[in-house]
Amino acid sequence: MKRYAYFISDGTGITAETLGNALLAQFDKIQFTRVTLPYIDSPEKANAAVAKINEAAKESGAPAILFDTIIDKSIRSIIDTADAFKVDIFETFLSPLEQELSVESSYSVGKSHSSANSASYLHRIDAINFALDNDDGARTRHYEDADVILVGVSRSGKTPTCLYLAMQFGIKAANYPLTEEDMMELSLPESLRKHRHKLFGLTIDPERLSAIRTERKANSRYASLKQCYHEVDEVEMLYERENIPFISTTDKSIEEISTRILQTTGLKRSQS
Amino acid sequence: MKRYAYFISDGTGITAETLGNALLAQFDKIQFTRVTLPYIDSPEKANAAVAKINEAAKESGAPAILFDTIIDKSIRSIIDTADAFKVDIFETFLSPLEQELSVESSYSVGKSHSSANSASYLHRIDAINFALDNDDGARTRHYEDADVILVGVSRSGKTPTCLYLAMQFGIKAANYPLTEEDMMELSLPESLRKHRHKLFGLTIDPERLSAIRTERKANSRYASLKQCYHEVDEVEMLYERENIPFISTTDKSIEEISTRILQTTGLKRSQS
Repeated sequence: MKRYAYFISDGTGITAETLGNALLAQFDKIQFTRVTLPYIDSPEKANAAVAKINEAAKESGAPAILFDTIIDKSIRSIIDTADAFKVDIFETFLSPLEQELSVESSYSVGKSHSSANSASYLHRIDAINFALDNDDGARTRHYEDADVILVGVSRSGKTPTCLYLAMQFGIKAANYPLTEEDMMELSLPESLRKHRHKLFGLTIDPERLSAIRTERKANSRYASLKQCYHEVDEVEMLYERENIPFISTTDKSIEEISTRILQTTGLKRSQS
Repeated sequence: MKRYAYFISDGTGITAETLGNALLAQFDKIQFTRVTLPYIDSPEKANAAVAKINEAAKESGAPAILFDTIIDKSIRSIIDTADAFKVDIFETFLSPLEQELSVESSYSVGKSHSSANSASYLHRIDAINFALDNDDGARTRHYEDADVILVGVSRSGKTPTCLYLAMQFGIKAANYPLTEEDMMELSLPESLRKHRHKLFGLTIDPERLSAIRTERKANSRYASLKQCYHEVDEVEMLYERENIPFISTTDKSIEEISTRILQTTGLKRSQS
């Protein structure tokens, strides 16, 4: 069975997509064709959106599912005329919240993803630059400023996780690739030892690691199963010996790895 | 006035945070203390969460606002006992959706951010690696594979935007810094000319640019107002002359810049 799902917003559409996709994930028997219509901020655009939605309903033989986060009431009333099943996120929750909080909501458009000058936004951008500047052990002299330093073997997921921690949570994450030499030593490299309370280890199933490395360098010693087993063994022994908290990234998304790191370290998510 | 806001989930908590923050942004007169409790997946953890929430209510003298995306009914029923105003995202919308779609939801935990082996997740990770490998004009030989190539002067926002496009939407975005030489030439560099239909320009207010560059290199020619005015003038002339679509990044978040780029280019968001 096929249905259209529309995400409609007067802003970026990201909130409508996030909630909508979380809800649609609960209905995996149905194939949804997803369409996002951002910046619907005038009656003209709203009417054009309604025309599109009605066409989709006709084509698929069923009303579209519509997730919207439009604030403006006159635009909302146009969208309401579409042949669709509406999941009206703001309308459903804003009035009860107004009552509970005893204040009126500001009903301002696109608040959630447009505060480009807020302290927390600038903090996130700083954190992204920090992750880029301190990627892959390139520099260690800024470890003083890091909130967390991820360690692990090459291709265990350090870089994407650092970027996600920065982008989503405003956390300054550096990363340092543990080499065979580091692991054979009886102590951590000096640059890491000084900040050992900030270290967090990643590990990964050796077969998965070998598959990932093969995509980069097929038929190399680097990608061989034997080498991957060896490195993962060594790195896990190092974590145990040095008492470094660690998790396996196998089968985990960067969202999951990142939130598990926050949970273990007690690092705070940046407030928006 | 101060209130506690709790985001509670049996998964990462990211969906609850995104929706909750979008709603709370409408109440800017109230100072919310935000707390996320992810991975609440056992009665023990749920009881501990309730204790925390009740303590917060006592401390602030008002019930906490609680955004939750817990699927399991027995855990949900424990959370229900907390002294809080509940915004029950899934409960509110899942039953009506089940009726509309004539299927039962799968009620499975943490669907939205844990599908680490899905095609769309792997696609996002590929896109992140692509953005890193093709940052700052480092390489141009992979432009064949790019979905979009951002151009602009140094520090106009290209890199964070490329990373966001990759992470959120699975879009392969390269970027190329336009230098003074490029701008003085009467035609685009060969590596860009071949892919001109993929080019998208960023521009920025010269005073803002100067402020950003000053943070990196104070008192340099690079950061001087005069130089910034000159470069921005030149780059905007280049966009006009070469018919490259462009937007200003001044006062825009990477979320806004990215969704505007999608809107202008017609690039599709990756489906989850």
